[in-house]
Amino acid sequence: MKTLPDVQTVLDARRDASLVDLVAFASIPSVSAQHQHRHDLLRAAEWLAERLRACGELTVEVWPTAGHPAVYAEWLGAPGAPTALIYGHYDVQPPEPLERWNTPPFTPTVRDGRLYGRGVSDDKGPLLIPVQVADAFFTAQGALPINVKFLFEGEEEVGSAHLDALVSERRERLRADFVLSADGGMWSADTPSLTVSARGIAALEFTLRGPAKDLHSGRHGGALQNPLHALAALVASLHDESGRVTVAGFYDGVQDRTPEERAETQRLPFSDEAYLQQTGANATFGEAGYSTLERQWYRPTLELNGLWGGYTGEGSKTVLPSEAHAKITCRLVPGQDPQHVTRQIIAHLHAQLPPGVTLEVQPSSHAAPAYHLPTQHPARSAAKAVLHELYGTPPLEVGMGGSIPVLDTFSRVLGIDTVFFSFAVGDEDIHAPNEFFRIERLAQGQRAWALLWQRLAQEGRRA
Amino acid sequence: MKTLPDVQTVLDARRDASLVDLVAFASIPSVSAQHQHRHDLLRAAEWLAERLRACGELTVEVWPTAGHPAVYAEWLGAPGAPTALIYGHYDVQPPEPLERWNTPPFTPTVRDGRLYGRGVSDDKGPLLIPVQVADAFFTAQGALPINVKFLFEGEEEVGSAHLDALVSERRERLRADFVLSADGGMWSADTPSLTVSARGIAALEFTLRGPAKDLHSGRHGGALQNPLHALAALVASLHDESGRVTVAGFYDGVQDRTPEERAETQRLPFSDEAYLQQTGANATFGEAGYSTLERQWYRPTLELNGLWGGYTGEGSKTVLPSEAHAKITCRLVPGQDPQHVTRQIIAHLHAQLPPGVTLEVQPSSHAAPAYHLPTQHPARSAAKAVLHELYGTPPLEVGMGGSIPVLDTFSRVLGIDTVFFSFAVGDEDIHAPNEFFRIERLAQGQRAWALLWQRLAQEGRRA
Repeated sequence: MKTLPDVQTVLDARRDASLVDLVAFASIPSVSAQHQHRHDLLRAAEWLAERLRACGELTVEVWPTAGHPAVYAEWLGAPGAPTALIYGHYDVQPPEPLERWNTPPFTPTVRDGRLYGRGVSDDKGPLLIPVQVADAFFTAQGALPINVKFLFEGEEEVGSAHLDALVSERRERLRADFVLSADGGMWSADTPSLTVSARGIAALEFTLRGPAKDLHSGRHGGALQNPLHALAALVASLHDESGRVTVAGFYDGVQDRTPEERAETQRLPFSDEAYLQQTGANATFGEAGYSTLERQWYRPTLELNGLWGGYTGEGSKTVLPSEAHAKITCRLVPGQDPQHVTRQIIAHLHAQLPPGVTLEVQPSSHAAPAYHLPTQHPARSAAKAVLHELYGTPPLEVGMGGSIPVLDTFSRVLGIDTVFFSFAVGDEDIHAPNEFFRIERLAQGQRAWALLWQRLAQEGRRA
Repeated sequence: MKTLPDVQTVLDARRDASLVDLVAFASIPSVSAQHQHRHDLLRAAEWLAERLRACGELTVEVWPTAGHPAVYAEWLGAPGAPTALIYGHYDVQPPEPLERWNTPPFTPTVRDGRLYGRGVSDDKGPLLIPVQVADAFFTAQGALPINVKFLFEGEEEVGSAHLDALVSERRERLRADFVLSADGGMWSADTPSLTVSARGIAALEFTLRGPAKDLHSGRHGGALQNPLHALAALVASLHDESGRVTVAGFYDGVQDRTPEERAETQRLPFSDEAYLQQTGANATFGEAGYSTLERQWYRPTLELNGLWGGYTGEGSKTVLPSEAHAKITCRLVPGQDPQHVTRQIIAHLHAQLPPGVTLEVQPSSHAAPAYHLPTQHPARSAAKAVLHELYGTPPLEVGMGGSIPVLDTFSRVLGIDTVFFSFAVGDEDIHAPNEFFRIERLAQGQRAWALLWQRLAQEGRRA
């Protein structure tokens, strides 16, 4: 193992350059959900392709899709060594509400050892780490320990709508032994962890329509259904008082975890008090009979992400509005089928629809089943060993409440599993104002990825 | 009666000028609810004062208040004749949603005999009519048949917050025999009607707070109360399935109308089918046991005017939001006390508050009890006689679902009643996009006001 010091020396020398890389990348407002940013998505893809080319030895391509393009790069110069497909995404969440940011979301800013900006943690920082590691290997020794295929998409934050088609189409080109995902994140900055499951997702949006136009609520109030009243009643009908989902068939296929599995979760160093401190909520809340972590990782949810109608500006406006709107996403666990869940919710909305309004549902393409990494997967043990070596303590194996729809794609289309190896942390306010990334974790992540590739190469040779 | 032809001749000759008056007035965006328009309120008050001065014989003053100013003008040159306090308001509702207007709200536009623009019907057109009539009387005969005191406020659309104090303070100056209100409106363009009651109003706004900041709904969903779920449950708890308000004490003091009164309402030429046609709703809806008109005019309501929280933009954003908001106004009937109603609603919100969120209520100053004009009032019979003469059919006596808070002020502080004498029509999309005023009703209204003043003078002399 005389090559490692060289790579590490190169990475150490490039500490500042790595940070500036991320600043440049995060300055591009690649908000995939917002049409006005479509050109910024192209700019971000081009920036990333250029960064990959700068590594010197990679074959780089930008792959168009029906939506935002994917960026692909490969190096296959390690015959006999395993091939890793490295996944990440260069698109980011909308930055709204803008007024809640302390510094502009696309002007990355350093405060207290953290870089603040939309997308720095999800997923531009974690994504850049393996790119920078590849660059350092090429500089230090002109080669990588294993074969790599980088696949970075631009639609993760809108449900990876076109990635399934792309992966199917490029199936041969993308063949690999496993996926290493640079998206995901550890659950705490202090304790190394390996995420071994992710919840799935199903999404829909609906509109209730009453009168053909907004009416004066004094003149017409009492005569007609108010779409806001109907919206509240319909949304309220989706949960019982404990927060359990009341949609018939919603829990179809969900299996109870074993007492052993539950006991393992119970042993994790998690406290409701610390969690409330972190989130600022005054109580935990949800389905009776499950701990907070169980509800986050292993129980399905139906969450309203947006609800609106009528006058929402300053002062008062006595309007009986024509329309009311809601956006919903569900998080799914193993056994649940996203299409079935969506169908059941739509049926519930129709069945419970209050009189005097009509319902229009817009189902979303944002859908993926839950994922679970097999316990015996070789990349799982390699990753655990590296984190143990790096942090001096064995990593916790944890679940993830969020969803990465491509996990299902990789499993179904390519037949391979995914190991999450991201250096983001769960508290970094992703999808919220003032998202940040801990600068020290750039270097930690680089060291970890270098060690991981070397270990995978050794194990590949042993196999 | 040899003076009438002269006044009418003057009014006829000024037909176009009257319309252009209204266009100029309605071009000023005097939106009282929006802080950025405060200067436009001053401009509108100045424009109106200038228009009153142009009548030549009026004493005109602009009266400051703690909010937007009131415009006052008087002529007291008819000793022995009654004195009318003429009320209207120069402020307008917010024009939002702007994208639903066919032409810009503050660029008054003529289409098919109608003038379109925010405020043309509520209340700038109806307000200008008695001003133009006074101007014509002064031109034709140098005097008015009765004494007049014009009082035009700039805060009607935000609950006339400072008018009560102003009227109290200027009590002596405002003494009159009755109020003629240029605000209100007839319920149909074809049938003359006289509004003899108005519902009262009570208003409040509330915010639910959960986590201290927006969270990722995948990572945190299921662990904490979602403020949008709590909002829906809380709002849904305010009504039963038939639309009846479930707040304890809400109906305190409400009295049943007599079988005779109900039968009279039943005889009015109103059809649910035509009403649904007009509003575009697919069904009428509300408290069982009451007709649509009864629910509009004689039953109290609790209406949501706005409901919002989370992500409401294009695409999806998987957020568990920190806050959720609601705006409420109630319409009240005789016997209900606005403060009591507001207190009961606040108590209900606290009692029904779901776990995991905190409640902050912002009560509004927008409050007034309901109003009913005494059956035997002399100005009521004069107004009926004029409308009968003008339209060849006795006017219907109708209720009004909306509220005019100053009615209570005039009754309580000045001890006088109010006769609604507005030429707006209930279908003119006030408080909604594409508000309009029927141009022909400028001339009809002028003729009616001239006749009314003459009749009141005759009756005053007889008395």
